[in-house]
Amino acid sequence: MQKADWIAVDWGTSHMRAWAMDAQDKVIAERHSDRGMGQITPDQYPGVLADLMGELLPDGPVQAIICGMAGARQGWVEAPYTAVPCNPPSAATAVQVQAGQIAAFILPGVSQASPPDVMRGEETQIAGFMAANSKFDGVICLPGTHTKWVHVSAGEIVSFQTFMSGEIFALLSGQSVLRHSVAGDGWSDEAFAEAVADAMARPGTLAAKLFSIRADGLLNGTGADVARARLSGLLIGLELAGARPYWLGQDIALVGAAPLCRLYQSALSAQGAPARIADVTEMTLAGLIAAHATLKDPQ
Amino acid sequence: MQKADWIAVDWGTSHMRAWAMDAQDKVIAERHSDRGMGQITPDQYPGVLADLMGELLPDGPVQAIICGMAGARQGWVEAPYTAVPCNPPSAATAVQVQAGQIAAFILPGVSQASPPDVMRGEETQIAGFMAANSKFDGVICLPGTHTKWVHVSAGEIVSFQTFMSGEIFALLSGQSVLRHSVAGDGWSDEAFAEAVADAMARPGTLAAKLFSIRADGLLNGTGADVARARLSGLLIGLELAGARPYWLGQDIALVGAAPLCRLYQSALSAQGAPARIADVTEMTLAGLIAAHATLKDPQ
Repeated sequence: MQKADWIAVDWGTSHMRAWAMDAQDKVIAERHSDRGMGQITPDQYPGVLADLMGELLPDGPVQAIICGMAGARQGWVEAPYTAVPCNPPSAATAVQVQAGQIAAFILPGVSQASPPDVMRGEETQIAGFMAANSKFDGVICLPGTHTKWVHVSAGEIVSFQTFMSGEIFALLSGQSVLRHSVAGDGWSDEAFAEAVADAMARPGTLAAKLFSIRADGLLNGTGADVARARLSGLLIGLELAGARPYWLGQDIALVGAAPLCRLYQSALSAQGAPARIADVTEMTLAGLIAAHATLKDPQ
Repeated sequence: MQKADWIAVDWGTSHMRAWAMDAQDKVIAERHSDRGMGQITPDQYPGVLADLMGELLPDGPVQAIICGMAGARQGWVEAPYTAVPCNPPSAATAVQVQAGQIAAFILPGVSQASPPDVMRGEETQIAGFMAANSKFDGVICLPGTHTKWVHVSAGEIVSFQTFMSGEIFALLSGQSVLRHSVAGDGWSDEAFAEAVADAMARPGTLAAKLFSIRADGLLNGTGADVARARLSGLLIGLELAGARPYWLGQDIALVGAAPLCRLYQSALSAQGAPARIADVTEMTLAGLIAAHATLKDPQ
Protein backbone atom coordinates (compact mmCIF):
# COMPACT_ATOMS: atom_id res chain seq x y z
CA MET A 1 0.00 0.00 0.00
CA GLN A 2 1.15 3.51 -0.86
CA LYS A 3 2.03 5.58 2.22
CA ALA A 4 0.96 9.20 2.80
CA ASP A 5 3.43 11.91 1.83
CA TRP A 6 1.36 14.29 3.94
CA ILE A 7 -2.09 14.36 5.53
CA ALA A 8 -4.96 16.80 4.99
CA VAL A 9 -7.54 17.06 7.80
CA ASP A 10 -10.89 18.81 8.20
CA TRP A 11 -11.81 18.52 11.89
CA GLY A 12 -15.38 19.57 12.53
CA THR A 13 -17.55 19.71 15.62
CA SER A 14 -19.39 16.43 15.04
CA HIS A 15 -17.23 14.71 12.40
CA MET A 16 -13.73 14.74 10.97
CA ARG A 17 -12.32 13.72 7.62
CA ALA A 18 -8.73 13.03 6.63
CA TRP A 19 -6.98 12.43 3.32
CA ALA A 20 -3.70 10.62 2.78
CA MET A 21 -1.98 12.67 0.07
CA ASP A 22 0.93 11.84 -2.26
CA ALA A 23 3.78 14.21 -3.09
CA GLN A 24 1.89 15.47 -6.16
CA ASP A 25 -1.14 16.41 -3.99
CA LYS A 26 -3.23 13.53 -5.29
CA VAL A 27 -5.50 11.70 -2.88
CA ILE A 28 -4.31 8.22 -1.95
CA ALA A 29 -7.19 7.52 0.44
CA GLU A 30 -9.97 9.39 2.25
CA ARG A 31 -11.23 8.44 5.72
CA HIS A 32 -14.07 9.64 7.97
CA SER A 33 -14.77 9.49 11.67
CA ASP A 34 -17.41 10.74 14.06
CA ARG A 35 -14.70 11.77 16.54
CA GLY A 36 -15.40 15.47 16.11
CA MET A 37 -14.37 18.19 18.56
CA GLY A 38 -17.58 17.70 20.52
CA GLN A 39 -16.82 14.04 21.22
CA ILE A 40 -13.17 14.13 22.31
CA THR A 41 -10.78 15.79 24.78
CA PRO A 42 -7.61 17.63 23.70
CA ASP A 43 -5.32 14.71 24.55
CA GLN A 44 -7.28 12.35 22.29
CA TYR A 45 -6.57 14.17 19.01
CA PRO A 46 -3.19 12.51 18.23
CA GLY A 47 -4.55 9.02 18.82
CA VAL A 48 -7.73 9.60 16.81
CA LEU A 49 -5.73 10.87 13.84
CA ALA A 50 -3.07 8.13 14.02
CA ASP A 51 -5.68 5.37 14.36
CA LEU A 52 -7.69 6.73 11.45
CA MET A 53 -4.68 6.88 9.13
CA GLY A 54 -3.33 3.50 10.35
CA GLU A 55 -1.25 1.70 7.74
CA LEU A 56 -1.30 4.79 5.51
CA LEU A 57 1.25 6.44 7.83
CA PRO A 58 4.84 6.32 6.59
CA ASP A 59 7.64 5.04 8.80
CA GLY A 60 9.14 8.46 9.39
CA PRO A 61 7.88 11.96 10.14
CA VAL A 62 4.79 13.20 8.32
CA GLN A 63 3.09 16.59 8.17
CA ALA A 64 -0.63 17.07 8.73
CA ILE A 65 -2.43 20.26 7.70
CA ILE A 66 -5.58 20.65 9.80
CA CYS A 67 -8.47 23.10 9.54
CA GLY A 68 -11.61 23.50 11.61
CA MET A 69 -12.52 23.04 15.24
CA ALA A 70 -9.24 21.33 16.21
CA GLY A 71 -7.99 24.93 16.51
CA ALA A 72 -10.87 26.13 18.72
CA ARG A 73 -10.30 27.05 22.36
CA GLN A 74 -11.90 23.74 23.39
CA GLY A 75 -10.13 21.82 20.56
CA TRP A 76 -6.65 20.26 20.26
CA VAL A 77 -4.55 23.42 20.50
CA GLU A 78 -6.03 26.89 20.15
CA ALA A 79 -5.08 28.60 16.91
CA PRO A 80 -6.05 32.25 17.52
CA TYR A 81 -8.15 33.96 14.88
CA THR A 82 -6.59 36.06 12.11
CA ALA A 83 -8.45 39.36 11.75
CA VAL A 84 -9.89 40.62 8.46
CA PRO A 85 -8.79 41.94 6.07
CA CYS A 86 -6.40 39.03 5.61
CA ASN A 87 -5.08 36.46 3.19
CA PRO A 88 -6.47 32.95 3.51
CA PRO A 89 -4.66 30.94 6.21
CA SER A 90 -1.19 29.61 5.43
CA ALA A 91 1.50 27.65 7.22
CA ALA A 92 2.89 30.95 8.49
CA THR A 93 -0.18 31.51 10.67
CA ALA A 94 -0.69 27.87 11.71
CA VAL A 95 -0.03 26.59 15.21
CA GLN A 96 2.39 23.64 15.14
CA VAL A 97 2.17 20.72 17.54
CA GLN A 98 4.18 17.48 17.42
CA ALA A 99 2.25 14.25 18.04
CA GLY A 100 4.56 11.28 17.72
CA GLN A 101 5.66 11.09 14.11
CA ILE A 102 2.97 13.60 13.03
CA ALA A 103 3.90 17.28 12.76
CA ALA A 104 0.44 18.88 12.92
CA PHE A 105 -0.13 22.38 11.55
CA ILE A 106 -3.45 23.70 12.82
CA LEU A 107 -4.81 26.54 10.69
CA PRO A 108 -6.40 29.52 12.43
CA GLY A 109 -9.95 30.75 11.93
CA VAL A 110 -10.76 34.30 10.83
CA SER A 111 -12.34 37.01 12.96
CA GLN A 112 -13.88 40.43 12.38
CA ALA A 113 -13.95 43.15 15.03
CA SER A 114 -17.00 45.07 13.86
CA PRO A 115 -19.58 43.77 13.66
CA PRO A 116 -18.13 40.96 15.79
CA ASP A 117 -17.93 37.73 13.82
CA VAL A 118 -15.87 34.54 13.59
CA MET A 119 -15.35 31.58 11.28
CA ARG A 120 -13.35 28.41 11.73
CA GLY A 121 -13.09 25.95 8.86
CA GLU A 122 -14.87 28.06 6.25
CA GLU A 123 -11.71 30.14 5.70
CA THR A 124 -10.07 27.02 4.27
CA GLN A 125 -13.00 26.41 1.91
CA ILE A 126 -12.65 30.04 0.84
CA ALA A 127 -8.93 29.53 0.32
CA GLY A 128 -9.69 26.52 -1.85
CA PHE A 129 -12.16 28.47 -3.96
CA MET A 130 -9.67 31.33 -4.33
CA ALA A 131 -6.93 28.88 -5.33
CA ALA A 132 -9.19 27.43 -8.02
CA ASN A 133 -10.46 30.86 -9.12
CA SER A 134 -7.48 33.15 -8.63
CA LYS A 135 -9.07 36.24 -10.16
CA PHE A 136 -12.37 35.96 -8.26
CA ASP A 137 -13.64 39.25 -6.89
CA GLY A 138 -17.05 39.02 -5.32
CA VAL A 139 -18.98 37.21 -2.64
CA ILE A 140 -18.68 33.64 -1.45
CA CYS A 141 -21.73 32.35 0.43
CA LEU A 142 -21.21 29.19 2.51
CA PRO A 143 -24.69 27.89 3.46
CA GLY A 144 -24.94 25.68 6.51
CA THR A 145 -25.82 25.71 10.20
CA HIS A 146 -24.18 29.13 10.42
CA THR A 147 -24.20 30.51 6.91
CA LYS A 148 -21.34 32.85 6.02
CA TRP A 149 -21.43 35.66 3.45
CA VAL A 150 -17.85 36.60 2.62
CA HIS A 151 -16.58 39.51 0.55
CA VAL A 152 -13.40 38.52 -1.26
CA SER A 153 -11.27 40.96 -3.25
CA ALA A 154 -7.68 41.11 -4.49
CA GLY A 155 -6.90 37.75 -2.92
CA GLU A 156 -8.07 38.83 0.54
CA ILE A 157 -11.00 38.07 2.81
CA VAL A 158 -12.31 41.63 3.23
CA SER A 159 -15.37 41.23 5.47
CA PHE A 160 -18.03 38.67 6.33
CA GLN A 161 -21.34 38.16 8.09
CA THR A 162 -22.69 34.97 9.69
CA PHE A 163 -26.43 34.15 9.77
CA MET A 164 -27.83 31.52 12.15
CA SER A 165 -30.64 30.62 9.73
CA GLY A 166 -29.62 26.95 9.45
CA GLU A 167 -29.58 26.40 13.20
CA ILE A 168 -32.91 28.21 13.58
CA PHE A 169 -34.38 25.94 10.90
CA ALA A 170 -33.12 22.86 12.75
CA LEU A 171 -34.56 24.05 16.09
CA LEU A 172 -37.94 25.08 14.67
CA SER A 173 -38.37 21.98 12.50
CA GLY A 174 -37.19 19.59 15.19
CA GLN A 175 -38.34 21.01 18.51
CA SER A 176 -40.89 23.81 18.17
CA VAL A 177 -44.69 23.77 17.90
CA LEU A 178 -44.05 23.54 14.13
CA ARG A 179 -42.36 20.14 14.32
CA HIS A 180 -45.50 18.17 13.48
CA SER A 181 -46.54 20.60 10.74
CA VAL A 182 -43.23 20.18 8.87
CA ALA A 183 -42.51 16.49 9.63
CA GLY A 184 -40.85 14.35 6.98
CA ASP A 185 -38.76 15.50 4.05
CA GLY A 186 -41.43 16.61 1.60
CA TRP A 187 -40.98 19.75 -0.41
CA SER A 188 -42.74 22.33 -2.62
CA ASP A 189 -40.66 24.58 -4.87
CA GLU A 190 -43.61 26.92 -5.27
CA ALA A 191 -44.17 27.33 -1.52
CA PHE A 192 -40.44 27.90 -1.04
CA ALA A 193 -40.31 30.63 -3.69
CA GLU A 194 -43.40 32.37 -2.29
CA ALA A 195 -42.03 32.30 1.25
CA VAL A 196 -38.66 33.73 0.15
CA ALA A 197 -40.42 36.62 -1.56
CA ASP A 198 -42.74 37.11 1.39
CA ALA A 199 -39.95 37.27 3.98
CA MET A 200 -37.86 39.61 1.83
CA ALA A 201 -40.80 41.97 1.39
CA ARG A 202 -41.80 42.02 5.08
CA PRO A 203 -38.91 40.74 7.20
CA GLY A 204 -40.41 42.03 10.45
CA THR A 205 -43.31 39.61 10.30
CA LEU A 206 -41.09 36.52 10.39
CA ALA A 207 -42.27 35.23 13.77
CA ALA A 208 -45.91 35.69 12.71
CA LYS A 209 -45.41 33.95 9.35
CA LEU A 210 -43.85 31.06 11.25
CA PHE A 211 -46.86 30.63 13.54
CA SER A 212 -49.10 30.92 10.50
CA ILE A 213 -47.56 27.68 9.19
CA ARG A 214 -49.02 25.91 12.23
CA ALA A 215 -52.39 27.67 12.01
CA ASP A 216 -52.64 26.92 8.29
CA GLY A 217 -52.16 23.24 9.06
CA LEU A 218 -54.82 23.27 11.79
CA LEU A 219 -57.40 25.26 9.82
CA ASN A 220 -56.77 24.19 6.24
CA GLY A 221 -54.94 20.88 6.52
CA THR A 222 -51.99 22.21 4.54
CA GLY A 223 -49.47 19.43 4.00
CA ALA A 224 -46.05 18.99 5.54
CA ASP A 225 -44.34 19.38 2.16
CA VAL A 226 -45.69 22.92 1.74
CA ALA A 227 -45.12 23.73 5.42
CA ARG A 228 -41.50 22.55 5.37
CA ALA A 229 -40.67 24.48 2.19
CA ARG A 230 -42.36 27.57 3.63
CA LEU A 231 -40.34 27.37 6.85
CA SER A 232 -37.12 27.08 4.86
CA GLY A 233 -38.15 29.86 2.47
CA LEU A 234 -39.06 32.28 5.25
CA LEU A 235 -35.66 31.84 6.94
CA ILE A 236 -33.63 32.02 3.72
CA GLY A 237 -35.71 34.98 2.54
CA LEU A 238 -35.10 36.84 5.79
CA GLU A 239 -31.39 36.12 5.40
CA LEU A 240 -31.32 37.36 1.80
CA ALA A 241 -33.01 40.57 2.94
CA GLY A 242 -30.33 41.08 5.58
CA ALA A 243 -27.44 40.01 3.36
CA ARG A 244 -28.49 42.19 0.42
CA PRO A 245 -25.50 44.55 0.84
CA TYR A 246 -23.31 41.47 0.32
CA TRP A 247 -24.84 39.95 -2.79
CA LEU A 248 -26.44 42.85 -4.66
CA GLY A 249 -24.58 43.42 -7.91
CA GLN A 250 -21.79 41.00 -6.98
CA ASP A 251 -20.30 37.93 -8.57
CA ILE A 252 -21.65 35.18 -6.26
CA ALA A 253 -20.30 31.70 -5.51
CA LEU A 254 -22.04 29.17 -3.25
CA VAL A 255 -19.88 26.66 -1.37
CA GLY A 256 -21.71 24.08 0.72
CA ALA A 257 -23.86 20.95 0.64
CA ALA A 258 -25.34 20.69 -2.84
CA PRO A 259 -29.07 20.54 -1.92
CA LEU A 260 -28.82 23.61 0.32
CA CYS A 261 -26.71 25.48 -2.25
CA ARG A 262 -29.40 24.82 -4.85
CA LEU A 263 -32.03 26.40 -2.56
CA TYR A 264 -29.91 29.52 -2.15
CA GLN A 265 -29.21 29.54 -5.89
CA SER A 266 -32.92 29.38 -6.65
CA ALA A 267 -33.76 32.13 -4.14
CA LEU A 268 -31.00 34.39 -5.46
CA SER A 269 -31.99 33.69 -9.04
CA ALA A 270 -35.50 34.97 -8.30
CA GLN A 271 -33.81 38.22 -7.26
CA GLY A 272 -31.97 38.42 -10.57
CA ALA A 273 -28.73 37.37 -8.91
CA PRO A 274 -27.13 34.35 -10.60
CA ALA A 275 -24.74 32.26 -8.49
CA ARG A 276 -22.39 29.41 -9.28
CA ILE A 277 -22.05 26.37 -7.00
CA ALA A 278 -18.76 24.78 -5.96
CA ASP A 279 -18.41 21.45 -4.14
CA VAL A 280 -17.59 22.01 -0.48
CA THR A 281 -15.41 18.92 -0.02
CA GLU A 282 -13.36 19.76 -3.10
CA MET A 283 -12.92 23.32 -1.88
CA THR A 284 -11.85 22.18 1.59
CA LEU A 285 -9.24 19.85 0.14
CA ALA A 286 -8.04 22.54 -2.30
CA GLY A 287 -7.67 24.92 0.65
CA LEU A 288 -5.65 22.40 2.63
CA ILE A 289 -3.45 21.72 -0.42
CA ALA A 290 -2.90 25.47 -0.84
CA ALA A 291 -1.91 25.78 2.84
CA HIS A 292 0.42 22.78 2.53
CA ALA A 293 2.08 24.41 -0.45
CA THR A 294 3.03 27.35 1.75
CA LEU A 295 4.88 24.91 4.04
CA LYS A 296 7.01 23.70 1.18
CA ASP A 297 7.41 27.13 -0.34
CA PRO A 298 6.77 29.80 2.31
CA GLN A 299 5.12 32.94 0.97
CA MET B 1 -65.83 24.49 54.51
CA GLN B 2 -67.78 26.52 51.97
CA LYS B 3 -68.68 24.54 48.84
CA ALA B 4 -68.31 25.80 45.27
CA ASP B 5 -71.35 27.32 43.61
CA TRP B 6 -69.53 26.90 40.30
CA ILE B 7 -66.00 26.22 39.09
CA ALA B 8 -63.76 28.33 36.85
CA VAL B 9 -60.97 26.48 35.04
CA ASP B 10 -58.00 27.57 32.90
CA TRP B 11 -56.60 24.37 31.36
CA GLY B 12 -53.24 24.98 29.72
CA THR B 13 -50.78 22.73 27.92
CA SER B 14 -48.42 22.22 30.84
CA HIS B 15 -50.49 23.38 33.82
CA MET B 16 -54.09 23.94 34.87
CA ARG B 17 -55.67 26.17 37.47
CA ALA B 18 -59.16 26.02 38.96
CA TRP B 19 -61.13 28.33 41.21
CA ALA B 20 -64.04 27.37 43.46
CA MET B 21 -66.45 30.28 43.08
CA ASP B 22 -69.39 31.39 45.23
CA ALA B 23 -72.75 32.56 43.89
CA GLN B 24 -71.55 36.18 43.93
CA ASP B 25 -68.52 35.29 41.75
CA LYS B 26 -66.08 35.64 44.62
CA VAL B 27 -63.20 33.17 44.87
CA ILE B 28 -63.56 30.61 47.67
CA ALA B 29 -60.34 28.78 46.83
CA GLU B 30 -57.77 28.56 44.01
CA ARG B 31 -55.91 25.36 43.12
CA HIS B 32 -53.12 24.47 40.69
CA SER B 33 -51.94 21.29 39.05
CA ASP B 34 -49.31 20.23 36.53
CA ARG B 35 -51.87 17.97 34.82
CA GLY B 36 -51.95 20.08 31.67
CA MET B 37 -53.19 18.86 28.29
CA GLY B 38 -49.73 17.57 27.43
CA GLN B 39 -49.66 15.23 30.41
CA ILE B 40 -53.08 13.57 30.29
CA THR B 41 -55.42 11.65 27.99
CA PRO B 42 -59.02 12.74 27.24
CA ASP B 43 -60.57 10.27 29.69
CA GLN B 44 -58.48 11.63 32.58
CA TYR B 45 -59.94 15.17 32.56
CA PRO B 46 -63.00 14.46 34.78
CA GLY B 47 -60.89 12.71 37.42
CA VAL B 48 -58.18 15.37 37.43
CA LEU B 49 -60.74 18.14 37.92
CA ALA B 50 -62.77 16.27 40.57
CA ASP B 51 -59.64 15.30 42.53
CA LEU B 52 -58.31 18.85 42.41
CA MET B 53 -61.57 20.34 43.72
CA GLY B 54 -62.06 17.56 46.29
CA GLU B 55 -64.05 18.67 49.33
CA LEU B 56 -64.90 21.97 47.61
CA LEU B 57 -67.40 20.12 45.41
CA PRO B 58 -71.03 20.45 46.53
CA ASP B 59 -73.19 17.36 46.98
CA GLY B 60 -75.28 18.01 43.89
CA PRO B 61 -74.66 19.13 40.31
CA VAL B 62 -72.12 21.90 39.66
CA GLN B 63 -71.16 23.82 36.55
CA ALA B 64 -67.56 24.27 35.43
CA ILE B 65 -66.56 26.92 32.86
CA ILE B 66 -63.33 25.88 31.18
CA CYS B 67 -61.05 27.74 28.81
CA GLY B 68 -57.81 26.73 27.13
CA MET B 69 -56.38 23.50 25.77
CA ALA B 70 -59.11 21.27 27.23
CA GLY B 71 -60.99 22.29 24.06
CA ALA B 72 -58.16 21.46 21.65
CA ARG B 73 -58.43 18.52 19.24
CA GLN B 74 -56.10 16.52 21.50
CA GLY B 75 -57.80 17.83 24.69
CA TRP B 76 -60.90 16.71 26.62
CA VAL B 77 -63.53 17.43 23.98
CA GLU B 78 -62.83 19.53 20.90
CA ALA B 79 -64.51 22.94 21.00
CA PRO B 80 -64.22 24.15 17.40
CA TYR B 81 -62.85 27.66 16.84
CA THR B 82 -65.13 30.67 16.46
CA ALA B 83 -64.03 32.77 13.48
CA VAL B 84 -63.29 36.50 13.71
CA PRO B 85 -64.90 38.96 13.75
CA CYS B 86 -66.70 37.63 16.83
CA ASN B 87 -67.77 38.39 20.35
CA PRO B 88 -65.67 36.88 23.12
CA PRO B 89 -66.70 33.30 23.89
CA SER B 90 -69.90 32.70 25.82
CA ALA B 91 -71.90 29.74 27.04
CA ALA B 92 -73.75 29.76 23.74
CA THR B 93 -70.62 28.69 21.88
CA ALA B 94 -69.29 26.31 24.54
CA VAL B 95 -69.24 22.54 24.16
CA GLN B 96 -71.02 20.85 27.07
CA VAL B 97 -69.92 17.53 28.52
CA GLN B 98 -71.22 15.83 31.65
CA ALA B 99 -68.64 14.29 33.98
CA GLY B 100 -70.34 12.83 37.04
CA GLN B 101 -71.81 15.71 38.99
CA ILE B 102 -69.85 18.28 36.96
CA ALA B 103 -71.50 19.90 33.93
CA ALA B 104 -68.46 21.15 32.04
CA PHE B 105 -68.75 23.97 29.51
CA ILE B 106 -65.64 24.09 27.38
CA LEU B 107 -65.14 27.45 25.69
CA PRO B 108 -63.97 27.54 22.08
CA GLY B 109 -60.84 29.23 20.81
CA VAL B 110 -60.88 31.87 18.09
CA SER B 111 -59.61 31.48 14.54
CA GLN B 112 -58.87 33.75 11.61
CA ALA B 113 -59.01 32.59 8.00
CA SER B 114 -56.57 35.05 6.46
CA PRO B 115 -53.84 35.19 7.39
CA PRO B 116 -54.41 31.82 9.08
CA ASP B 117 -54.21 32.14 12.85
CA VAL B 118 -55.62 30.57 16.00
CA MET B 119 -55.82 31.24 19.73
CA ARG B 120 -57.08 29.06 22.57
CA GLY B 121 -57.20 30.49 26.07
CA GLU B 122 -56.20 34.05 25.19
CA GLU B 123 -59.75 34.79 23.97
CA THR B 124 -60.91 34.38 27.59
CA GLN B 125 -58.24 36.79 28.85
CA ILE B 126 -59.43 39.22 26.19
CA ALA B 127 -63.03 38.71 27.31
CA GLY B 128 -61.94 39.49 30.87
CA PHE B 129 -60.20 42.68 29.80
CA MET B 130 -63.22 43.73 27.77
CA ALA B 131 -65.52 43.02 30.70
CA ALA B 132 -63.38 45.22 32.93
CA ASN B 133 -62.96 47.92 30.24
CA SER B 134 -66.23 47.87 28.37
CA LYS B 135 -65.48 50.85 26.14
CA PHE B 136 -62.00 49.72 25.15
CA ASP B 137 -61.25 50.18 21.46
CA GLY B 138 -57.68 49.38 20.53
CA VAL B 139 -55.12 46.62 20.67
CA ILE B 140 -54.55 43.98 23.33
CA CYS B 141 -51.12 42.40 23.25
CA LEU B 142 -50.75 39.10 25.15
CA PRO B 143 -47.01 38.40 25.44
CA GLY B 144 -45.93 34.81 25.99
CA THR B 145 -44.62 31.75 24.17
CA HIS B 146 -46.87 32.68 21.26
CA THR B 147 -47.56 36.39 21.63
CA LYS B 148 -50.92 37.60 20.30
CA TRP B 149 -51.68 41.09 18.99
CA VAL B 150 -55.45 41.50 18.95
CA HIS B 151 -57.52 44.31 17.48
CA VAL B 152 -60.64 44.85 19.57
CA SER B 153 -63.43 47.22 18.59
CA ALA B 154 -67.11 47.66 19.45
CA GLY B 155 -67.01 44.67 21.79
CA GLU B 156 -65.65 42.32 19.12
CA ILE B 157 -62.38 40.60 18.40
CA VAL B 158 -61.75 42.00 14.92
CA SER B 159 -58.43 40.48 13.88
CA PHE B 160 -55.22 39.16 15.42
CA GLN B 161 -51.69 38.05 14.67
CA THR B 162 -49.55 35.54 16.60
CA PHE B 163 -45.76 35.86 16.84
CA MET B 164 -43.58 32.91 17.91
CA SER B 165 -40.96 35.21 19.47
CA GLY B 166 -41.26 33.70 22.95
CA GLU B 167 -40.75 30.14 21.75
CA ILE B 168 -37.81 31.23 19.57
CA PHE B 169 -36.25 32.94 22.63
CA ALA B 170 -36.64 29.72 24.64
CA LEU B 171 -35.08 27.57 21.90
CA LEU B 172 -32.18 29.93 21.23
CA SER B 173 -31.39 30.60 24.89
CA GLY B 174 -31.75 26.97 25.92
CA GLN B 175 -30.51 24.89 23.03
CA SER B 176 -28.62 26.88 20.39
CA VAL B 177 -24.95 27.85 20.09
CA LEU B 178 -25.98 30.95 22.07
CA ARG B 179 -26.93 29.00 25.19
CA HIS B 180 -23.57 29.51 26.93
CA SER B 181 -23.39 33.19 25.91
CA VAL B 182 -26.75 34.00 27.54
CA ALA B 183 -26.63 31.60 30.52
CA GLY B 184 -28.16 32.70 33.83
CA ASP B 185 -30.77 35.37 34.37
CA GLY B 186 -28.69 38.53 34.21
CA TRP B 187 -29.99 41.57 32.39
CA SER B 188 -29.07 44.96 30.92
CA ASP B 189 -31.80 47.50 30.22
CA GLU B 190 -29.45 49.44 27.98
CA ALA B 191 -28.53 46.41 25.84
CA PHE B 192 -32.22 45.49 25.56
CA ALA B 193 -33.20 48.98 24.37
CA GLU B 194 -30.36 49.09 21.84
CA ALA B 195 -31.26 45.67 20.46
CA VAL B 196 -34.95 46.58 20.10
CA ALA B 197 -34.01 49.68 18.11
CA ASP B 198 -31.50 47.74 16.05
CA ALA B 199 -33.92 44.97 15.08
CA MET B 200 -36.68 47.46 14.26
CA ALA B 201 -34.34 49.43 12.01
CA ARG B 202 -32.91 46.40 10.17
CA PRO B 203 -35.21 43.41 10.69
CA GLY B 204 -33.61 41.39 7.88
CA THR B 205 -30.32 41.06 9.73
CA LEU B 206 -31.86 39.22 12.70
CA ALA B 207 -30.06 35.90 12.15
CA ALA B 208 -26.73 37.75 11.77
CA LYS B 209 -27.27 39.88 14.89
CA LEU B 210 -28.01 36.67 16.76
CA PHE B 211 -24.71 35.04 15.75
CA SER B 212 -22.95 38.28 16.60
CA ILE B 213 -23.96 37.76 20.25
CA ARG B 214 -21.85 34.60 20.24
CA ALA B 215 -18.94 36.19 18.38
CA ASP B 216 -18.98 39.21 20.69
CA GLY B 217 -18.62 36.87 23.65
CA LEU B 218 -15.72 35.00 22.05
CA LEU B 219 -13.84 38.09 20.88
CA ASN B 220 -14.69 40.68 23.53
CA GLY B 221 -15.78 38.66 26.53
CA THR B 222 -19.16 40.40 26.62
CA GLY B 223 -21.12 39.21 29.64
CA ALA B 224 -24.18 36.99 29.74
CA ASP B 225 -26.33 39.82 31.14
CA VAL B 226 -25.78 41.96 28.04
CA ALA B 227 -26.04 38.94 25.73
CA ARG B 228 -29.34 37.77 27.25
CA ALA B 229 -30.91 41.24 27.08
CA ARG B 230 -29.71 41.62 23.50
CA LEU B 231 -31.24 38.29 22.46
CA SER B 232 -34.56 39.30 24.01
CA GLY B 233 -34.40 42.79 22.52
CA LEU B 234 -33.65 41.55 19.01
CA LEU B 235 -36.66 39.20 19.05
CA ILE B 236 -39.07 41.71 20.60
CA GLY B 237 -37.77 44.44 18.27
CA LEU B 238 -38.34 42.24 15.23
CA GLU B 239 -41.86 41.55 16.49
CA LEU B 240 -42.62 45.23 17.05
CA ALA B 241 -41.44 45.93 13.49
CA GLY B 242 -43.82 43.29 12.15
CA ALA B 243 -46.71 44.22 14.46
CA ARG B 244 -46.46 47.96 13.75
CA PRO B 245 -49.79 47.99 11.86
CA TYR B 246 -51.38 46.71 15.06
CA TRP B 247 -49.97 49.10 17.65
CA LEU B 248 -49.23 52.29 15.74
CA GLY B 249 -51.55 55.05 16.94
CA GLN B 250 -53.66 52.63 18.97
CA ASP B 251 -54.71 52.42 22.58
CA ILE B 252 -52.56 49.48 23.80
CA ALA B 253 -53.10 47.06 26.69
CA LEU B 254 -50.65 44.34 27.69
CA VAL B 255 -52.02 41.18 29.31
CA GLY B 256 -49.47 38.59 30.40
CA ALA B 257 -46.78 37.74 32.93
CA ALA B 258 -45.72 41.01 34.57
CA PRO B 259 -41.94 40.86 33.84
CA LEU B 260 -42.51 40.15 30.15
CA CYS B 261 -45.25 42.80 29.93
CA ARG B 262 -42.81 45.35 31.36
CA LEU B 263 -40.30 44.53 28.61
CA TYR B 264 -42.92 45.08 25.93
CA GLN B 265 -44.06 48.24 27.69
CA SER B 266 -40.51 49.58 27.74
CA ALA B 267 -39.93 48.71 24.07
CA LEU B 268 -43.23 50.30 23.02
CA SER B 269 -42.58 53.35 25.14
CA ALA B 270 -39.32 53.93 23.25
CA GLN B 271 -41.48 54.07 20.11
CA GLY B 272 -43.72 56.71 21.66
CA ALA B 273 -46.47 54.15 22.22
CA PRO B 274 -47.63 54.03 25.85
CA ALA B 275 -49.27 50.80 27.00
CA ARG B 276 -51.10 49.82 30.18
CA ILE B 277 -50.54 46.43 31.85
CA ALA B 278 -53.30 44.17 33.18
CA ASP B 279 -52.76 41.07 35.32
CA VAL B 280 -53.21 37.94 33.26
CA THR B 281 -54.66 35.75 36.02
CA GLU B 282 -57.19 38.42 36.95
CA MET B 283 -58.18 38.80 33.30
CA THR B 284 -58.57 35.02 32.85
CA LEU B 285 -60.82 34.78 35.88
CA ALA B 286 -62.82 37.83 34.77
CA GLY B 287 -63.28 36.20 31.36
CA LEU B 288 -64.50 32.95 32.93
CA ILE B 289 -66.88 34.91 35.17
CA ALA B 290 -68.23 36.77 32.13
CA ALA B 291 -68.77 33.47 30.30
CA HIS B 292 -70.48 31.98 33.36
CA ALA B 293 -72.80 34.99 33.48
CA THR B 294 -74.03 34.10 29.98
CA LEU B 295 -75.04 30.67 31.32
CA LYS B 296 -77.24 32.25 33.94
CA ASP B 297 -78.49 34.97 31.64
CA PRO B 298 -78.08 33.89 28.01
CA GLN B 299 -77.29 36.73 25.58
